[in-house]
Amino acid sequence: MPTTTKKELIDRISARTGLRRNDVRETVQQFLDEVVNELAKGRRLEFRDFGVFEVKSRAPRVGQNPRTLERVQVPARKTVKFKPGRLMNAAFEVTTAAKRKVSPVASIVGAA
Amino acid sequence: MPTTTKKELIDRISARTGLRRNDVRETVQQFLDEVVNELAKGRRLEFRDFGVFEVKSRAPRVGQNPRTLERVQVPARKTVKFKPGRLMNAAFEVTTAAKRKVSPVASIVGAA
Repeated sequence: MPTTTKKELIDRISARTGLRRNDVRETVQQFLDEVVNELAKGRRLEFRDFGVFEVKSRAPRVGQNPRTLERVQVPARKTVKFKPGRLMNAAFEVTTAAKRKVSPVASIVGAA
Repeated sequence: MPTTTKKELIDRISARTGLRRNDVRETVQQFLDEVVNELAKGRRLEFRDFGVFEVKSRAPRVGQNPRTLERVQVPARKTVKFKPGRLMNAAFEVTTAAKRKVSPVASIVGAA
């Protein structure tokens, strides 16, 4: 899948708004850093339409090394979950709806 | 979990950098909109240290309504996945490591 970088977005936003590239870069970087900091402080972030970032915990468990059969304690782990918001889901629903029209859904259900 | 909003981050970045709040708001909003647009175009976004946004597909499947037992076609769905990057994971590893010291890991393993 082709990749878009932060630099490309910064250049694009700067060109479109006329804001200085350094200022756009500073804002974008501080924004991303703040998301990390807030999550590390145990807060969730909700950006309307875009989505929600929050920290989920995985419980500790006893695992087993498949080679040595030794039991090991796997510690509790925290991971960041992103839940897409309304606007982001809508961007994909268009694609899905378009696909649905050409896929043979009715015939599959009928054959079942 | 307490929630941080976009507005709070915009105010904070504006205060810290001295950039005008309207300019910070415009940059942050365009940045979030661009992430959605790029994903909708089938591109992934990689922000070093922060993480990767990409679109994953779920295959279509035949489901069943548990009440009527009727079979229904569940169409293919696309969803956005976020994979936390190095900096974001590091922010949580500190927490986990600190917890590990006080948790009775050794005794649990010893008892197993």
